Amino acid sequence: MNKYRLMSPGPTPVPEKVLLRMADTMIHHRTPQFQEVLKRVNVKLKQVFSTKNPVLIMASSGSGAMEASITNLVSAGDKILVIKGGKFGERFAEIAEAYGVEVVEYAIVWGESADPRIVENMLKENPEIKAVYSTLCETSTGVVSDIKEIGRVVAKTNAVLVVDAISGFLADELKTDKWGVDVVVCGSQKGFMLPPGLAFLSIGPKAEKLLAGSKLPKYYFDLKVALKSYGKDDTPWTPAVSLIMGLDSVLDMIIEEGLDNVIERHAYLANITREAVKAIGLELFALNPSNAVTSVKVPDGIDGVGLVKKMRDEQGITIAGGQGSLKGKIFRVAHLGYMDGYDTMTAIAGIEIVLKQLGYDVKFGKGVAKAQELFK
Amino acid sequence: MNKYRLMSPGPTPVPEKVLLRMADTMIHHRTPQFQEVLKRVNVKLKQVFSTKNPVLIMASSGSGAMEASITNLVSAGDKILVIKGGKFGERFAEIAEAYGVEVVEYAIVWGESADPRIVENMLKENPEIKAVYSTLCETSTGVVSDIKEIGRVVAKTNAVLVVDAISGFLADELKTDKWGVDVVVCGSQKGFMLPPGLAFLSIGPKAEKLLAGSKLPKYYFDLKVALKSYGKDDTPWTPAVSLIMGLDSVLDMIIEEGLDNVIERHAYLANITREAVKAIGLELFALNPSNAVTSVKVPDGIDGVGLVKKMRDEQGITIAGGQGSLKGKIFRVAHLGYMDGYDTMTAIAGIEIVLKQLGYDVKFGKGVAKAQELFK
Repeated sequence: MNKYRLMSPGPTPVPEKVLLRMADTMIHHRTPQFQEVLKRVNVKLKQVFSTKNPVLIMASSGSGAMEASITNLVSAGDKILVIKGGKFGERFAEIAEAYGVEVVEYAIVWGESADPRIVENMLKENPEIKAVYSTLCETSTGVVSDIKEIGRVVAKTNAVLVVDAISGFLADELKTDKWGVDVVVCGSQKGFMLPPGLAFLSIGPKAEKLLAGSKLPKYYFDLKVALKSYGKDDTPWTPAVSLIMGLDSVLDMIIEEGLDNVIERHAYLANITREAVKAIGLELFALNPSNAVTSVKVPDGIDGVGLVKKMRDEQGITIAGGQGSLKGKIFRVAHLGYMDGYDTMTAIAGIEIVLKQLGYDVKFGKGVAKAQELFK
Repeated sequence: MNKYRLMSPGPTPVPEKVLLRMADTMIHHRTPQFQEVLKRVNVKLKQVFSTKNPVLIMASSGSGAMEASITNLVSAGDKILVIKGGKFGERFAEIAEAYGVEVVEYAIVWGESADPRIVENMLKENPEIKAVYSTLCETSTGVVSDIKEIGRVVAKTNAVLVVDAISGFLADELKTDKWGVDVVVCGSQKGFMLPPGLAFLSIGPKAEKLLAGSKLPKYYFDLKVALKSYGKDDTPWTPAVSLIMGLDSVLDMIIEEGLDNVIERHAYLANITREAVKAIGLELFALNPSNAVTSVKVPDGIDGVGLVKKMRDEQGITIAGGQGSLKGKIFRVAHLGYMDGYDTMTAIAGIEIVLKQLGYDVKFGKGVAKAQELFK
């Protein structure tokens, strides 16, 4: 028996009852039955996104919604500010380039987080910037951004703030309306505990005003068309019916646990992980670590790629390695979605075992004991 | 108990074992485990698409792949020929317009099918046309196109042939390579017997040559990027893991039944439906009817919208009404995907009952008996 444990920052495990909900009879999407589901999902999404504005559902991965957040708000030749501190900040810049949008780059050393005062200064120096693109949790480094403060800074300008919250959402706090976040982009396969295949995009009035002026071509991801259907509790294209059924279930789970409790649980699991890896003698990589994923420096002399591989192939625990320039230098353990303390403890136990196999001097149970101590 | 019967041209019923396959443990997409699935799915897709060329899998509905088939092949200002005989032909034209591509329109009366000789003449008159866009089955009218002959005509020119086979695929014959079809666009929720959320796009060498020259902006649907990942049995963005697991299963089912047998079964069910509705005294709408869906004229004096509604709400059988200008004038019964003779017979029995309720003079069992006679 090879039991499979998914501890990567997406996809994350899907609760069994949600898997079974998605295995129910397929129904047609243009029927009162499905419209009723969509109607209550739309209400619950607003609640979970802490917004009174529309949250659109797309049949695509998160990158599709990231593209929509550029092609619908600006035009070719417009300037946007992209906060680039990892692979997903880079993705925003790549999309902008593909569409001829000019990127003013705020490049951060990977592992560090954006300084809101620098964002403020860059906006002052470039008053023509139409939109600021940030990540909530930069999945590739495990860093969380200070969206609250960035929101305060951007709100004072004409620019809108777009946040890629794909991996951080439901793990790190994000008060969409209160913090002045105009667009939040999410995916289904992270904190939402669903399979990949759905993306979400919330859009506030300041961003909605930009839709009419955006001249970039689009069709499938045209938010004007999507909003028109949304107003009728419909979707412009055939929706991913089974995933939306699952969404209905996970939103109930999230609301039942309580949004604040969900985030607190992630903070708790992240804290256990951080303290346990420190107890093993390892060093954290992110200066401002996210609650979604903990990035850990691979100790000198240890094979970081091998560590992730042995965890997966021998221990049955799928964690993530470093991406791009961080390959082999960090590993990343998620505590995201359908996770509790024992899941986290299991990951730590596996890491202890594999580190020892790779020649690292670790006393079994040190990290595990730290986790146990912190259990609530 | 309200048993739900899905007889619409997408979504279609999903076999129970496929539903359960998709309910299996979520796994990570960048792992040897998932790569192995993708590798065999890629091989089986080629077989089912009757092509030796790549068949790309996208996380989107079919409309996303339709968009990709325009934005990757041509540039703004280029001319394309769109065969427009219903809602989905119109969609190609709308996408082209959104991207500034010039559409030469071959408008057909809804219910009729394209004349390949007219396509030939239009290509002669407009030698600058870069691509021809046709549907296999125009879902809105139930008409099947003569793709074999259109393929022969287009193959003699520099233009490529793109076929939206979303609803017709696996029901109507389509020999991709043999018939010179350069791009086939498909969706998961029709003949493939899966939930909506995946799109497929096959691309042959004549179309692939156009990718480099296309100047239209794109990112999520960039086929150059998708082909690069495809070559490594990978996907550029997070794939819809659970739906691809289901795809692995349905492809086995299709290959086990045999591609020709699958199409023959659809032809058989379509024939039963056509003969049965004629036995009831109704008239077929499509001149060249598809094997995917049978469109039937609503008899004079009968409420066509009410018929579809009563079928759904009182009989539990979801069929489709007419779209656009055909609203209330036709109804459409699918025999698509996971369907056999008794499913078809059930739809006919329901139609008899509802027609009688609406005041149409029908003798119970007439259509049903015709179906029974034709049973194999």
